[in-house]
Amino acid sequence: MDIDAERLRADLEASGKIGEVDASEGWGRTVLTGSEANRQARDRFVERLEAAELAVSVDAVGNVTGTWTPASADREAGAVAAGSHLDSVPEGGIFDGPLGVYAALEAVRSLQESGFEPARPLTVVSFTEEEGSTFSGGLLGSSVATGQRSVEDALALSDGGALSDGGENQGNERTLEDALETIGYRGEGRLDASEWEAFLEVHVEQDTVLETRGVPVGIVTDITGISHSSVRIRGEANHAGTTAMGERTDALAAASEFVLELEAAGNRAAEAGDNTAVATVGKCTVRPNATNVIPGAVDLGVDVRDVDGKVMRELLGEAETFLEDIEVERGVETTVERHLEVEPAPMSERCRQALEFGAADMDIDSLDLHSGAAHDAMHVARVTDTGMLFSPSRGGYSHSPLEWTDWADCATATRVLAAAMKRLSSEA
Amino acid sequence: MDIDAERLRADLEASGKIGEVDASEGWGRTVLTGSEANRQARDRFVERLEAAELAVSVDAVGNVTGTWTPASADREAGAVAAGSHLDSVPEGGIFDGPLGVYAALEAVRSLQESGFEPARPLTVVSFTEEEGSTFSGGLLGSSVATGQRSVEDALALSDGGALSDGGENQGNERTLEDALETIGYRGEGRLDASEWEAFLEVHVEQDTVLETRGVPVGIVTDITGISHSSVRIRGEANHAGTTAMGERTDALAAASEFVLELEAAGNRAAEAGDNTAVATVGKCTVRPNATNVIPGAVDLGVDVRDVDGKVMRELLGEAETFLEDIEVERGVETTVERHLEVEPAPMSERCRQALEFGAADMDIDSLDLHSGAAHDAMHVARVTDTGMLFSPSRGGYSHSPLEWTDWADCATATRVLAAAMKRLSSEA
Repeated sequence: MDIDAERLRADLEASGKIGEVDASEGWGRTVLTGSEANRQARDRFVERLEAAELAVSVDAVGNVTGTWTPASADREAGAVAAGSHLDSVPEGGIFDGPLGVYAALEAVRSLQESGFEPARPLTVVSFTEEEGSTFSGGLLGSSVATGQRSVEDALALSDGGALSDGGENQGNERTLEDALETIGYRGEGRLDASEWEAFLEVHVEQDTVLETRGVPVGIVTDITGISHSSVRIRGEANHAGTTAMGERTDALAAASEFVLELEAAGNRAAEAGDNTAVATVGKCTVRPNATNVIPGAVDLGVDVRDVDGKVMRELLGEAETFLEDIEVERGVETTVERHLEVEPAPMSERCRQALEFGAADMDIDSLDLHSGAAHDAMHVARVTDTGMLFSPSRGGYSHSPLEWTDWADCATATRVLAAAMKRLSSEA
Repeated sequence: MDIDAERLRADLEASGKIGEVDASEGWGRTVLTGSEANRQARDRFVERLEAAELAVSVDAVGNVTGTWTPASADREAGAVAAGSHLDSVPEGGIFDGPLGVYAALEAVRSLQESGFEPARPLTVVSFTEEEGSTFSGGLLGSSVATGQRSVEDALALSDGGALSDGGENQGNERTLEDALETIGYRGEGRLDASEWEAFLEVHVEQDTVLETRGVPVGIVTDITGISHSSVRIRGEANHAGTTAMGERTDALAAASEFVLELEAAGNRAAEAGDNTAVATVGKCTVRPNATNVIPGAVDLGVDVRDVDGKVMRELLGEAETFLEDIEVERGVETTVERHLEVEPAPMSERCRQALEFGAADMDIDSLDLHSGAAHDAMHVARVTDTGMLFSPSRGGYSHSPLEWTDWADCATATRVLAAAMKRLSSEA
C-alpha cells in the first residue's frame, strides 16, 4: 500500500486558501473558531470525510469526527483515532493543525484502497479551538472530549468581542455556543476520547531539531506543560500633557516592567534547565490607547511552558511576585487569572512503538524528541494510549505565514501514520 | 450685563450626553471626528448658533463658525473670535473642548442681550479634530485655518480604520474627506484665522494649580510645545512554545524597553527643569496579539512636550538613540515617524490684558500659569493676537470620565471671556 501524496497536497492547499491572509512573505491564514473562515474550513473537511464514505458526527462543542467501520471491524471495539485541529492563530501558518487532520484522512483513505480489513473502526477527528485564540484557553475541544471540561462550561465561554472585527456582529461579545450555532457546528452529545483504543496526531514540529539533523519524522516522547494567564494592570488614565511625570500611574510602563521581568525569568529558567522552559507575553491590549492619554489599563496574555511541571510552577510564582513588587513601586492594581494549566504529558509506549515500527518498516529515518508546544494529544494522553509524530518545520517557523513543511515530508509522515494506524487496528 | 449660567450648563450637559460612555465613575464621552457622535455634537452646536441668530459657516475641513455682525459692527473689520473644539479622546471628559465652545456662544448671547454694540463682528468657532485621536496629528482644524497645513493634505488623512469599530463601515480605512462627507460636514472654502482681530479660548486646566491655590480662573502665559510620533518595532512572530528563549526577536519585549527608557528620560528632563517636561507612550498595538505567539510587530504612539523647545528636541533625540540601541541589542527593526511638532507658543500681551482686566473688573481672583496641554490657540497665536483662560479641573483629571469643572467655575470663566470679548471688540 501507499498513500496518495498528490491528494494529500491538494487537501492541504485547499485548506490553506481558507482564511488566507495577505502576507508579504510565506502563506498564512486566519481561521478563528466560529468565524466565517472556520465555517468554510469545517464544511470542506466534512465534504472530504463524506467523499471517503466516513460516518460524520459533530458533538455539542463542534468536535468533528468521520469514522470508517467496514464489515471486518468490531463495531463495539474502541476506534483507532487520528487527527488534529483546523483553527489557527491570527495570521498563522497553513500546516499547524490541518496537516494532522488531512494526514489522518489520507491514511484512512489509503488503508481503504489497499484492501486492508481492520478489526477496529478508524476515526478521523478535528478538535474545536485548539489554539485558544478566540475563546479563553486552548485545547478546548479535546478538553471536553476527555472530560476535563464540561460541555456547559465550554459553550458558555466568551470571545470577548474577538470575533466582532470585520464580522456582522461587530462590538458584541459572543459565547462559543452562539458562535458554533452561527456557523452550523453546534452538534449533539459529547465526543468521548476515552472510548478510543488509541489516538495518533501528526503535527509540524514548530522547531528546528528535525531540519537541523536532516530527519524526516520525529516521534514525540512527551509534551511540555503549558499555562496561559491573563494579567490585568490598572493605573490611571490621564492627560499626557498636563500630568507631571511624578504624578502618574501609567499602566503601560508598569506592564513594560512585567514583560521584561518575565522575559528575564524565562531566560534564567531556560539556562538552568535543558533550554526547554519558555515564558512569553504574546498579547497586550491598552486602554484607552491614544497617544495623548496616559494608559489607564493594560491586559496581558502570558504563556509559560516547560517539560518539567515544577519549573513551570516556579515561573508562574515568580510572575506573581513581579506583579506584587510593581504594585508597591508604581501604585497600580494587578490581577492574574489562570485560564489554562496542563501538566507535561508522556506519550504511550505502545503508540511510540507503532510509529517507530511503521517508520522502520519503510526505512524512514526517525528520531525521538519532546514537544515544546501543547497539542490536543496531551489531553487525550490522559484517557487513552496516545502518540505524536512530527514533520520538519522549515526554519522552525510556526504561528506565522513563514511556517512551511515540504510536501514530501507531509507525505512521509502520513505514510508512517497509516502504518501505525494499521498496526494498532489489526487486532480487536 | 451678566451671562446666563443655567443656559451655559444646559448646553454643556446636553453636549456631555452625546457619545456618553458607560463609566464606573464620573461622566465620560467618546466623540471621535467623523463618528455618528461627532455628527450629533456638530448638529446640536449649529442649532444653538442658529437659535442665537449667528451666521453659520462650515469650511472644507469641517471647522464651524457662527458670527454675529450687528449694525454697529464694521463688516470689513476683523472679528473677535472665541471657541475651542467638540471632539474628544476615546473615553474623554465632557468639558475638554465643549466648555470653550459653549462659553464663547454664551458670551456672545449675553453681549447680544445686554444691548452691547460691538464695533467688530464676534465669531464663535469649533475647530475640527483637536485631539488627533482619529486622524493623524492633533490641532487639525486650526492648523488648516492658520495655513500650516493645506486643505488637501488634511482631507487626505486616513483614520487607519479607527472609525470602523461599531460603525457601518467596519474594517475600512477612511479619509477625513470621506468621514466629513458621511456626517455632512465637508463644507466649502477655508476658515482664515489670520483675518481675526483676536482669538480667545476658554479651556479646563487639566492640572491642579488652580484647584490647589483656590483660584477660579487662570490666564495662560504660554503654551507648551508638543510632538507626536509613531514608533514601529518589527521583530519576528513565532510560536511561543517551541521557540527557545535565546532564539527570539520579541517586538513587545523590545517595545517594553523603549517605554521604560522614555519614561526615565522624561523623569530626568522634568527634574532638570521646572517639572514641565513630559514623555508618554500612550498607544501600543501588538501584532498578531495572541497569547501563544511571540509578538512580531508593535506600534507605539509617543507624546513629548515641554515649554522649552530645546528640551523637547533633546528628548526626541534621546528616544531615537534608545531605539538604535534596542535595534543593536535585540535584532529588531525600528522606524520613527513624526506626525505633529509644534513649538511652544507665548500668548499675546493684549489678550492677556483684556482677560486680566475682565477678571479684575468683576473682582474675580486670577493667576498667571502656563499650559502643559496643546490647544488650538497655539496655532492661532502664530497668525493673530491670542489669549487663553483656564478653569479649575477637579483633581487635575482630564482625558478621562473623572474630568470635572464645577458649574460655578464654568460660569466665572465665561463672565471673564465675555468681558474680554467686549473690550477687544469695542473699537474697530
